Amino acid sequence: MAAAVPRGRIRTDAARNAERIVAAAWQTFTEHGADAQLGEIARRAGVGPATLYRHFANKDELARAVLQWRFSEDMEPVIERALQDTDPWHGMVMVWEAALNMAIQERHILSISRNPVIAADLADRFNDALAEIVHRAQVAKLVRADISRDDLLALTMMLLNVAGWGGPTQQGWRRYLVLLMDAMRPQAATPLPPI
Amino acid sequence: MAAAVPRGRIRTDAARNAERIVAAAWQTFTEHGADAQLGEIARRAGVGPATLYRHFANKDELARAVLQWRFSEDMEPVIERALQDTDPWHGMVMVWEAALNMAIQERHILSISRNPVIAADLADRFNDALAEIVHRAQVAKLVRADISRDDLLALTMMLLNVAGWGGPTQQGWRRYLVLLMDAMRPQAATPLPPI
Repeated sequence: MAAAVPRGRIRTDAARNAERIVAAAWQTFTEHGADAQLGEIARRAGVGPATLYRHFANKDELARAVLQWRFSEDMEPVIERALQDTDPWHGMVMVWEAALNMAIQERHILSISRNPVIAADLADRFNDALAEIVHRAQVAKLVRADISRDDLLALTMMLLNVAGWGGPTQQGWRRYLVLLMDAMRPQAATPLPPI
Repeated sequence: MAAAVPRGRIRTDAARNAERIVAAAWQTFTEHGADAQLGEIARRAGVGPATLYRHFANKDELARAVLQWRFSEDMEPVIERALQDTDPWHGMVMVWEAALNMAIQERHILSISRNPVIAADLADRFNDALAEIVHRAQVAKLVRADISRDDLLALTMMLLNVAGWGGPTQQGWRRYLVLLMDAMRPQAATPLPPI
């Protein structure tokens, strides 16, 4: 009898279903991109279409959930370590490398998500962490003082723009990350015009 | 009698028609973007639809012709001056500024053209000039030696990516041009990983 199932158990089952759907969506989006069928995702997750729609109204919601999941797996631990790193320059490299690796790996899901870069809340979380680390690097005179939070966003956009370069390994962005980080050093700094 | 018209005259009329169509297309694309109607372009140019189609088979061909015209007007004179500039750093700034100004001004036509950045032949012309100027700057030790032609292309792509930033004036790219040019100075250079 359904009434005999404790509430906590129901919630746990629902959460488990949502997790299975998101994992199945990740696989399916990665294989088929925007052509991925919600029916196939439900089948892979072992749930009915009605269960899938109860959790996610459309493909965009599903893509956002996949992004949030991958961000929490791939980015959050790196951000935590970078914030605790005593060398802010190293912390900066770590979060940018993780972001670009994630952008390459999850390019199919990012292209499905309506926001072409990343869901806005995840971008905020990334930018907050990066701005905090760069501020520490500025206090330590490792980064020029005139780099603003908006500049960090622009630099990240620029790197994402060339993220897929460099042939099959798609690691061309590493070269431009080093180049942009050289631009942030105080040694070669000339006055920047205001945006 | 048509036969009495000298051949040179016919060719001149055709060229004049093509010029009028391209100028009308520029105006119409700028106002209406990809929604611009070929019928309106023909009307503005004072030619019939058949004449328009004889010169340009479709919207894409027309957008390319507009780009080529704007490039020859806005970029070619700057490229010529930059190649003759005795200060290669100044020449570099000139061609990049002209390219970004053109990208902002012709954004509607660039978004119609199938190649999202610029017609490939124009991109080649721009890159050849930029590479030649930067090579001179490298010989003069003004630019780090490890910047390649591919890097210049990547830097241009990055700048185009943020070309529209900075509110209504859309001059935010100026800040990032200065920042990327600082990255090119030998003073702050660290070894770049290969692409």
